[in-house]
Amino acid sequence: MANTEKKIRAGIVGYGNLGRGVESVIKYFTDFELVAILSRRSPDELSIATPGVLKLHIEEALSLKGKIDVMILCGGSVNDLPTQGPEFAKHFVTVDSFDTHAKIPEYYKAMNEISSGSNLTSIISAGWDPGLFSLNRVIAQSVLPSSSGSTFWGKGLSQGHSTAIRMVDGVEAAAQYTVPLDDAVNKARKGESASLTTKDKHLRECFVVVKEGADKSKIEEEIKTMPNYFADYNTVVHFINIDEFNLNHNKMPHGGFVIQSGNINGNTQTIEFSLSLDSNPEFTASVLVAYARAAARLYSEGKTGAFTVFDIPPAYLSSESDENLRKNLL
Amino acid sequence: MANTEKKIRAGIVGYGNLGRGVESVIKYFTDFELVAILSRRSPDELSIATPGVLKLHIEEALSLKGKIDVMILCGGSVNDLPTQGPEFAKHFVTVDSFDTHAKIPEYYKAMNEISSGSNLTSIISAGWDPGLFSLNRVIAQSVLPSSSGSTFWGKGLSQGHSTAIRMVDGVEAAAQYTVPLDDAVNKARKGESASLTTKDKHLRECFVVVKEGADKSKIEEEIKTMPNYFADYNTVVHFINIDEFNLNHNKMPHGGFVIQSGNINGNTQTIEFSLSLDSNPEFTASVLVAYARAAARLYSEGKTGAFTVFDIPPAYLSSESDENLRKNLL
Repeated sequence: MANTEKKIRAGIVGYGNLGRGVESVIKYFTDFELVAILSRRSPDELSIATPGVLKLHIEEALSLKGKIDVMILCGGSVNDLPTQGPEFAKHFVTVDSFDTHAKIPEYYKAMNEISSGSNLTSIISAGWDPGLFSLNRVIAQSVLPSSSGSTFWGKGLSQGHSTAIRMVDGVEAAAQYTVPLDDAVNKARKGESASLTTKDKHLRECFVVVKEGADKSKIEEEIKTMPNYFADYNTVVHFINIDEFNLNHNKMPHGGFVIQSGNINGNTQTIEFSLSLDSNPEFTASVLVAYARAAARLYSEGKTGAFTVFDIPPAYLSSESDENLRKNLL
Repeated sequence: MANTEKKIRAGIVGYGNLGRGVESVIKYFTDFELVAILSRRSPDELSIATPGVLKLHIEEALSLKGKIDVMILCGGSVNDLPTQGPEFAKHFVTVDSFDTHAKIPEYYKAMNEISSGSNLTSIISAGWDPGLFSLNRVIAQSVLPSSSGSTFWGKGLSQGHSTAIRMVDGVEAAAQYTVPLDDAVNKARKGESASLTTKDKHLRECFVVVKEGADKSKIEEEIKTMPNYFADYNTVVHFINIDEFNLNHNKMPHGGFVIQSGNINGNTQTIEFSLSLDSNPEFTASVLVAYARAAARLYSEGKTGAFTVFDIPPAYLSSESDENLRKNLL
């Protein structure tokens, strides 16, 4: 499908942060045409930014058969994808960013059975973690056996933790950032990260707006002792006013590092991959669209069933021909 | 071949820095067995560190047919690989790190014709640049269209430039390092690198030991004005004594960065891949062995012809099963 003049016709399933992210980045992928956006909400309620795109209720998906080359599934991993993934894979080539790490084997199995049965192609867990970070873990560990690998997340907004803080009595608004600790990152770069836990590697930094008259020291104590979320972490709380909050904490930045390092024959060898993202959902969306291109190409070559980022030749992500890639980028 | 109990039987062709690098790292790849080392020198002259490895003259290669799963070609790209590559690809599965960027299309064509004809598999240009850096250029450009990409090399020893300095009258020993300039790296991270040339991005730092009575200012002038090598670069010369030289400049460190960054819908999104290597030849060697594993797997699946890093699913670099990779690293 790539490398021809025909555009890849894409559909977006789910119109939350991620679905809107795909809509806003897909215009940069000039070999794509956005055909339809599907949602569980009534189509009348959807205010879609791109002109000429069909709005459909998710129940009307089958009317798009033959009109869509790839469905980009943008639902959540907890409630949406476990059912939507297999449903859509029966009838469409799909790509998703399923990110419940522990349930990936089970989800892969379900998607592979359906896609193989329908003679279609699905790519699962294609975001940045899982996704590009996973890819780098495999490459780095393969190239440097007997070295230590470490993944750091952040600096980035954690939506779950921000929500938890907002549940504390007296809190008006909150943003929680996961911040990798420099000391731990430097240890990882020297191959000394093997014993570090996620807690050793990250700080939880909270920016909190309180309601008038609220007791700040009580709120701070309540946040820092919150089980699961903060109690076992090094947590810092900053109280700010609502203007500063609206000015500086209204984006969804994220990023992180995958570092593999070891001392091999007396030589420290270090491989590092990192992301610095002003918009987490738009970046995940960009990865999804690149893998949607790969899905279309795999399907056009008759390669069906479920795939992960580990199974896909990197050239399949590109709109350039293999010949041009060898000439210009190798 | 990977994922079974049978080891991958490897041969090394060429016993310079890279060949010795492969010999010294392959012990970490526990699914490999080093069977033979071939050289143009007389086998008696080779002092091989690993016990039990066959030493052969390169002309005796055919005696190894059926005893080697992958030949790791460690010759140079200028004089050795253009002839050795096709010769070996007639009879063996091969992997090499051919690195003359401009001649890759021609070399690929030759290797693909031979390997396809012999029903064998060859992987070309599998080092770090070309190799892992190329891989990251393709992935990053595919995910972030309409952003700027930039490759930086160093801090690393340049053997060609070090040799050029040693040719200057009065010089006893010299090491030249290519050093990425921080300002340029920071511009690249903000997506502002499009106009930067290689010269804008790098400093050439020289450590020079002079012979007794030599005129340092004349030597410095001669180095800084040397056409092609230094004249157009920002060059710094440090004069040191031979003890300091032997203590601090006897390794072959290298590394660099591949940075892709752009402002997309008002958001700066940056992907960065970097290497920091105490030993350049041992790292290239490690990449070669990981791709030798991929070559063995491709061949065992009947996938013949020439491949580059762009064509190979990342899972093929690993000794782990696809199932374990999905479970543990996705």
